[in-house]
Amino acid sequence: MTYCLAIAIQDGLIFCSDSRTNAGPDRVSTYSKMHRFSVAYDRSLVLLTAGNLATSQAVIAHIQRDLEEDAEFNILKARYVADVADYIGELNVAEQARHKKPSGPGAGASFDASATFILGGQIKGHAQALYLIYPEGNYITASELYPYLQIGETKYGKPILDRIVRPDTPYETAMRCALVSMDSTIRSNATVGPPLECLFYRNDSLKPHARYFALEEHHPYLAKLRQSWDDNIREAFAKLPSLGEVIGEDD
Amino acid sequence: MTYCLAIAIQDGLIFCSDSRTNAGPDRVSTYSKMHRFSVAYDRSLVLLTAGNLATSQAVIAHIQRDLEEDAEFNILKARYVADVADYIGELNVAEQARHKKPSGPGAGASFDASATFILGGQIKGHAQALYLIYPEGNYITASELYPYLQIGETKYGKPILDRIVRPDTPYETAMRCALVSMDSTIRSNATVGPPLECLFYRNDSLKPHARYFALEEHHPYLAKLRQSWDDNIREAFAKLPSLGEVIGEDD
Repeated sequence: MTYCLAIAIQDGLIFCSDSRTNAGPDRVSTYSKMHRFSVAYDRSLVLLTAGNLATSQAVIAHIQRDLEEDAEFNILKARYVADVADYIGELNVAEQARHKKPSGPGAGASFDASATFILGGQIKGHAQALYLIYPEGNYITASELYPYLQIGETKYGKPILDRIVRPDTPYETAMRCALVSMDSTIRSNATVGPPLECLFYRNDSLKPHARYFALEEHHPYLAKLRQSWDDNIREAFAKLPSLGEVIGEDD
Repeated sequence: MTYCLAIAIQDGLIFCSDSRTNAGPDRVSTYSKMHRFSVAYDRSLVLLTAGNLATSQAVIAHIQRDLEEDAEFNILKARYVADVADYIGELNVAEQARHKKPSGPGAGASFDASATFILGGQIKGHAQALYLIYPEGNYITASELYPYLQIGETKYGKPILDRIVRPDTPYETAMRCALVSMDSTIRSNATVGPPLECLFYRNDSLKPHARYFALEEHHPYLAKLRQSWDDNIREAFAKLPSLGEVIGEDD
């Protein structure tokens, strides 16, 4: 499995992804799920992938081939981020269709080739944009009040995002929240794991080098963050009002 | 949807359930998902239900009819809690089979009649026991290190249980943790909602009246717990080490 998320704040866009992939318990491996496409001061785009690894790798390969072969449409020719979302949606649908098993009597076990993507960034002359692209090829943007999108194992890490992230959250806080959301997911689900990749694109910068870092399993900051969060959560829990009155006397 | 959980600690067993059910967005309703079967100083059993409401109600009705008609086997005749788990598993499978749609060409949309149960309690002469009964009729018990079981919308509320609950956790703490786990789920998922029911069975008591309370949406304790948890989590988050060093200077 996978967990990736992106946050759209006034400061810019934050992307965070784990790196664990598995195709059965004896094929656990590590792949980056974060892909960047930029041209300095013209466009800066980031793509996160979840779902079937063969499908998502084939989509990325197709994007790269369209760039190398200067295809009629490619990421560098797109006028809007939404056009790129449409293009990736189409590649995704086409790739899944190629590997669809025949259905009906005699067909084998069901097979899920679907992949889901988060695409975010900015193209010169337009506002920053963030989309979640479904296996069906259509897409949504983040909500105004809860300005984040998630793919993969989304549920464990959702509560902390709902509590902390708002459109005016500063970027350092939002990145830290993304890492805490990752940590809760990793703790509760063995199929999500480090290295964690994190990227911040500053709104309207269109700079060639976005702020990026990767945290390996034993990175000192990750260790410190985990220990601190665990301690602080226990302390937060210990300070909750006692159930004493509600529960009544022991009898 | 639903969220129910149970915790097996040295002090005894804790059960917690929400009360929201829905069969489509315009059929949202409130039903208790906690059912008790006890005979003073002989046995005390609690059953939590999730999944298809028609199936789980039919299983409960069947259990009650077997009690009224003094059937060859019923909950009051069982010698072990595991025998009750087997019996509920069989009722569950039989009820689902009755409503299975024909499959193959011409069949309608797929239909999920499956239900899942948590069964816990004690029968005189035996240790307390806790089981999660699958739609297939088989069942598991809780792990020794992480002594809880969940059914329904389990993921949002799992991280806090993983951090706090251990076999030697005192019962008041475990109940509070169950309520926090519920609150995180309610906040992140609209299909889980109050009233929340909570029950504590003290190990080896076999008392006719277990400690039970229900918290309506606007119960003062629930409001206080939510506000306090929200405040404390924000404070816990604010105390985390800054990403400053990792993220580098702003450029």
